[in-house]
Amino acid sequence: MSFQNPVFIPGPTNIPEAIRKACDMPTLDHRSAAFGKLFRPAVAGVRRVLGMEGGEVIILPSTGTGGWEAAITNTLSPGDRVLAARFGMFSHRWIDLCQRHGLEVEIIETPWGQGAPVAAIEAALKADTAGRIKAVLATHNETATGVRSDIAGIRRAMDAAGHGAMLFVDGVSSIGSMPFDMAGWGVDIAVAGSQKGFMLPAGLAILGVSDKALAAMEGARLPRTFFDFRDMLRSYAGGGYPYTPAVGLIAGLAKSIEMLEEEGLEAVYARHARLAEGVRRAVAAWGMRPCAASADLYSETVTAVVVPPGCNGTDLVKLAAEKYGVAFGVGLGEVAGKVFRIGHLGMLTDVMVLGGLATAEMCMADLGWGVRLGSGVAAAAEFYRGSAVPMAMAAE
Amino acid sequence: MSFQNPVFIPGPTNIPEAIRKACDMPTLDHRSAAFGKLFRPAVAGVRRVLGMEGGEVIILPSTGTGGWEAAITNTLSPGDRVLAARFGMFSHRWIDLCQRHGLEVEIIETPWGQGAPVAAIEAALKADTAGRIKAVLATHNETATGVRSDIAGIRRAMDAAGHGAMLFVDGVSSIGSMPFDMAGWGVDIAVAGSQKGFMLPAGLAILGVSDKALAAMEGARLPRTFFDFRDMLRSYAGGGYPYTPAVGLIAGLAKSIEMLEEEGLEAVYARHARLAEGVRRAVAAWGMRPCAASADLYSETVTAVVVPPGCNGTDLVKLAAEKYGVAFGVGLGEVAGKVFRIGHLGMLTDVMVLGGLATAEMCMADLGWGVRLGSGVAAAAEFYRGSAVPMAMAAE
Amino acid sequence: MSFQNPVFIPGPTNIPEAIRKACDMPTLDHRSAAFGKLFRPAVAGVRRVLGMEGGEVIILPSTGTGGWEAAITNTLSPGDRVLAARFGMFSHRWIDLCQRHGLEVEIIETPWGQGAPVAAIEAALKADTAGRIKAVLATHNETATGVRSDIAGIRRAMDAAGHGAMLFVDGVSSIGSMPFDMAGWGVDIAVAGSQKGFMLPAGLAILGVSDKALAAMEGARLPRTFFDFRDMLRSYAGGGYPYTPAVGLIAGLAKSIEMLEEEGLEAVYARHARLAEGVRRAVAAWGMRPCAASADLYSETVTAVVVPPGCNGTDLVKLAAEKYGVAFGVGLGEVAGKVFRIGHLGMLTDVMVLGGLATAEMCMADLGWGVRLGSGVAAAAEFYRGSAVPMAMAAE
Amino acid sequence: MSFQNPVFIPGPTNIPEAIRKACDMPTLDHRSAAFGKLFRPAVAGVRRVLGMEGGEVIILPSTGTGGWEAAITNTLSPGDRVLAARFGMFSHRWIDLCQRHGLEVEIIETPWGQGAPVAAIEAALKADTAGRIKAVLATHNETATGVRSDIAGIRRAMDAAGHGAMLFVDGVSSIGSMPFDMAGWGVDIAVAGSQKGFMLPAGLAILGVSDKALAAMEGARLPRTFFDFRDMLRSYAGGGYPYTPAVGLIAGLAKSIEMLEEEGLEAVYARHARLAEGVRRAVAAWGMRPCAASADLYSETVTAVVVPPGCNGTDLVKLAAEKYGVAFGVGLGEVAGKVFRIGHLGMLTDVMVLGGLATAEMCMADLGWGVRLGSGVAAAAEFYRGSAVPMAMAAE
Repeated sequence: MSFQNPVFIPGPTNIPEAIRKACDMPTLDHRSAAFGKLFRPAVAGVRRVLGMEGGEVIILPSTGTGGWEAAITNTLSPGDRVLAARFGMFSHRWIDLCQRHGLEVEIIETPWGQGAPVAAIEAALKADTAGRIKAVLATHNETATGVRSDIAGIRRAMDAAGHGAMLFVDGVSSIGSMPFDMAGWGVDIAVAGSQKGFMLPAGLAILGVSDKALAAMEGARLPRTFFDFRDMLRSYAGGGYPYTPAVGLIAGLAKSIEMLEEEGLEAVYARHARLAEGVRRAVAAWGMRPCAASADLYSETVTAVVVPPGCNGTDLVKLAAEKYGVAFGVGLGEVAGKVFRIGHLGMLTDVMVLGGLATAEMCMADLGWGVRLGSGVAAAAEFYRGSAVPMAMAAE
Repeated sequence: MSFQNPVFIPGPTNIPEAIRKACDMPTLDHRSAAFGKLFRPAVAGVRRVLGMEGGEVIILPSTGTGGWEAAITNTLSPGDRVLAARFGMFSHRWIDLCQRHGLEVEIIETPWGQGAPVAAIEAALKADTAGRIKAVLATHNETATGVRSDIAGIRRAMDAAGHGAMLFVDGVSSIGSMPFDMAGWGVDIAVAGSQKGFMLPAGLAILGVSDKALAAMEGARLPRTFFDFRDMLRSYAGGGYPYTPAVGLIAGLAKSIEMLEEEGLEAVYARHARLAEGVRRAVAAWGMRPCAASADLYSETVTAVVVPPGCNGTDLVKLAAEKYGVAFGVGLGEVAGKVFRIGHLGMLTDVMVLGGLATAEMCMADLGWGVRLGSGVAAAAEFYRGSAVPMAMAAE
Repeated sequence: MSFQNPVFIPGPTNIPEAIRKACDMPTLDHRSAAFGKLFRPAVAGVRRVLGMEGGEVIILPSTGTGGWEAAITNTLSPGDRVLAARFGMFSHRWIDLCQRHGLEVEIIETPWGQGAPVAAIEAALKADTAGRIKAVLATHNETATGVRSDIAGIRRAMDAAGHGAMLFVDGVSSIGSMPFDMAGWGVDIAVAGSQKGFMLPAGLAILGVSDKALAAMEGARLPRTFFDFRDMLRSYAGGGYPYTPAVGLIAGLAKSIEMLEEEGLEAVYARHARLAEGVRRAVAAWGMRPCAASADLYSETVTAVVVPPGCNGTDLVKLAAEKYGVAFGVGLGEVAGKVFRIGHLGMLTDVMVLGGLATAEMCMADLGWGVRLGSGVAAAAEFYRGSAVPMAMAAE
Repeated sequence: MSFQNPVFIPGPTNIPEAIRKACDMPTLDHRSAAFGKLFRPAVAGVRRVLGMEGGEVIILPSTGTGGWEAAITNTLSPGDRVLAARFGMFSHRWIDLCQRHGLEVEIIETPWGQGAPVAAIEAALKADTAGRIKAVLATHNETATGVRSDIAGIRRAMDAAGHGAMLFVDGVSSIGSMPFDMAGWGVDIAVAGSQKGFMLPAGLAILGVSDKALAAMEGARLPRTFFDFRDMLRSYAGGGYPYTPAVGLIAGLAKSIEMLEEEGLEAVYARHARLAEGVRRAVAAWGMRPCAASADLYSETVTAVVVPPGCNGTDLVKLAAEKYGVAFGVGLGEVAGKVFRIGHLGMLTDVMVLGGLATAEMCMADLGWGVRLGSGVAAAAEFYRGSAVPMAMAAE
């Protein structure tokens, strides 16, 4: 028997029926006009979700990691300096990637559980009087700790420093689930993936690229072919692709954006915030706290729950998988064992989340963590029932 | 956004992925040899699930109601007498069907919440010294009240009365989820549907027919064509069908049985019993009780929950649908308003059931029923965690 | 390896992607408001495709045979007389069904290859001065011989005879593929199935019922429950169903009609006529002829090809299936062996038909029928290329 | 109406039902044990299809272009010299990629329509007495011209020259459709894609990497992260992935290999050869010839048809798409306009190919190319019927 519990990992998310069906298509000649009919609305929709003005959208048959690589190889040259804060596994990995491609990374070490340190970034930029820093890298939503950074604040810091660096933002686990304002925040490259807020299977890196970043592209000397924006943009102009695109995922992306906009982006963000708040109420009822150091840092897509002293979050994740067939996320890197993570992004409902919380409680009871069964569920339920947005059961 | 909560109605059930995929097939010529490759394993599997010895399986592109009609029109003649107890909406409907087809029904009126009254059946059969009763009709699992009747007991009563009537059993909401022993119980026709224990979409009536019932078929004078077993059996013999079969559902039926047998029928029954017991623990924690009058009558596929005085079960069902997008069953007929029903059959897991129970609790709180949030969830969770059968997350 | 050749049987047809996806849905509570959102457009669409004014649409989880049975059991009483012509296997079967349900059938025996004999029908009605004939049964498209009858002509004959009988039409293999005008032709019950012009899997009988037939319903004394229009109409009024409906097929029916109307019904009919004409050109090029006796009788959905003397059409069908994995239809009844049938209805394209014709030619060559390879294909191709309606490759 | 003609492009291919269903799966936690159950058989199967001994399989969420890039960035360093012949668009693009990554490419210019020139390769290697050439690049099946090169011959040339360079082979449009013997031919890296012989959607680059190439990996200084084999192999060892894998495609790959091996790899290759020969018979009947210069060079997956003087192959491709909804491939680069391409790989049958050929003939007639309708179809049909492997219509 195959049992189909929802997943509670911070991505890939549960995939809506309509998106699965959009992705699952017969072969379509990607050199034909029919491809453009799928591709153009996907691109136009990404512009709206990212809040772009000007610039270009690049969609690569790749993943978020590929998106990070594409961002730097298309705009920078060997030896270029970038500025980045490290405060979780994903900010760490982007830094590591830059170093492996021969960039010099000025790292602001920041405690895990904190967000990107706006003041320190401003200071670093002000100190860079020679303008050696070509780009500031920021992880909007650090998936390892459930921390949302203040990208608007980073933009203000950059402006305050009067520094001309580009701003590259990893929005993989935020875009489509939390407000994102590429133009308003002056983001030069935003990196998203298909498998988070867009609720698709993994397989697409989705980038918004500003005009400023496109200008940098011409002089960038890091080698690239698969990720080369120039080939992409030349092919796009003719309605095509420089190689075989992931047609089904692109069709699914168009459908995803149609669904997000049918619900309304603001409603989508509010739904994520509401579900996240319910999870946090449950965490509080358990006598625990999020890894994120303060309420302004709380991610609306993932909560890293700090487990009690003497407990190991990884035990809970393993038990949930093996005993109950439910997937949560383990702690990574510095917080391995110290947290377990509940993903609450994409297509989720109250009933799904409550089932997930009840499962976490069973695991805690099994592990002797001293949590009262039903306590977290009740706290979340009380919040959900007071804040529910009536909805009919959808036919689709 | 289409939200995909599981359903908690007593059928149709949630459909497993693998069954949806088996049903969703391109057109196959039903007059070709390929059809037999799907049909034969489905038929053979039905025999095993029903516990048949001898007799024939009939699979009609219809529903349980069609199965009831086929059972009587293929074996009885106008004016024939049948014996049936009425103790719920579905036993009532079968009686009504018999009357509409010109049969004389000797009805044993039985309180809703009770099962088929074995002693009264025995008495009625003993009283029928002229042998006018041609068939005893029994509803194995009365879906309206969540009551399981004792079919083995009815067989013993028939034997004790030394009566030669046929025994027809409505197993629509039991077969595939609760033990069924057609040969052992001496059942002459068992009626199942695709959309309950077999976890398929509605669209098939599935019947097990004993040799005794087949003998009666030749002399039966109720008119029928679509439901005529004779046409069916003639066509089956040639690997075909007298008209266009529902090929996809038959493919899905074969897959369903493969899944049930892979898990093991005993394990499937144990799983249903375990999930049902968790639901009943929640009901008790809410201070309520099942409609079924005693523990030996509890259905393992559906619990009709008697709501407190002054409360209306239908209000809960409406609220759950409109506010939370979750489907429960309303009370029907005599128990309309007095109960709401939680279906717990087919592909279900702890996490799904707990989410459903949490949703019911939110509704109760919304309606001011005085139930403590988390109370039922905790009671079910305590039971589930103590009785869980470890399982890995299935890949399929 | 599973090879997915299109089928060339006269139904079930090849199923379009979009329809397969519409049918393949997760379980939806059929007692919820969501069901009505699927059901109402399906019903409204059927009205348009059938050309109804007044009356009601009935959709049964059954097949065309069930539709025939529903038509008579809901409107007639035991001993009632009906008038019908027999000129193929499907007109024969409806007559047989009537007889099995205790009706008296006045049969006009007509050579296979001819259509319903309008003059003979008129004569029979005129002779029925006592008005004993309650209904005239007509098979619009006799699938066994590929003959289309003149329903408008039958209506004129009935009017000329001044006879008040009802007119019941089997449109199973015509509706959705050839023009149908229920109101204009004064049809009282039209029977369609899901698996032909609607391009769905088998599993629905779809009936248009006139106000006159609905009036007859009240007095009809043939027994029925599963097929009872009264239960259906009572339930429909509340947005529901008297038993579990085939929700996925109803969703697919709504999608089917959306697709047919997006193309335009007239365009759909023209497409069928065009593909059929190509097939007939191929048949002529092979030196053969359709079973239909004259051009005005040609079906646009199926061509029964009369094979040369000494040849056996069933051999071709078997060889095509076993050697090439392609499904054609065998001859049935009187024309068994004398014809093979090429279905050309539903979602078909030039390239599909040409592939099918080429396969038929290979079989003819294998069987030594003396047909030149490529001859039929060339004739059809010449016609198709001269009459093609440009189309882009669809994305969906 | 969406019409679903098969495609006749040289990839992506038509996707079998069973593979579409394997790919279309609900979200599975890729960090759970369940992922390994999908991944390990996919990897093991790739080993068998590639004919590997030793070495490692790398599966990247990318495309063939990404596979080319991964091959060189994981084994070479800036300034390294590689040897490659250019005789078509795809051999050209790999050369271009190498140059963009800072490699020095010794190019053997070869007429389009020829294969990799074994003698010239041997001469170049013999001339490289300093051993500066680190790798020989060979395009096994040049998709632009329909030419298969002799990889075994290249290995013999390398051995004859006593040269220690690695041998990298682009098998994107050959692997899974034509014999490939990685161990026997001494291939160090073989690059395949998901969307050709494996019949999946695009989205995976699949590489076989020899132990010799793995040894080179440690010293390779071309920058890479997304494509880095070292991260992959470290993660694989723990049953995981360095980032989110394309789980559905990997499940589909496992299914693809299961299907290929169920048919038998030799039977798969024979089927491709048989279908290709039929296409070439049609081409000859049209009075045309393949672009491949001689019979030993004929590709079994794609035929580039040289069009008559004064004709333009691109016109045919456009017309087929716009008028008939059928996709063929245009000529690329040097042979743009001079050829059109018929892909005949993946899940294809006689009836599909014959339909495609008939469509090409209609286009030729429309364009006034002086080809007799039916001529090519007849030639192919004659060959197919004489060489058919009987098969039943598959149920799946």
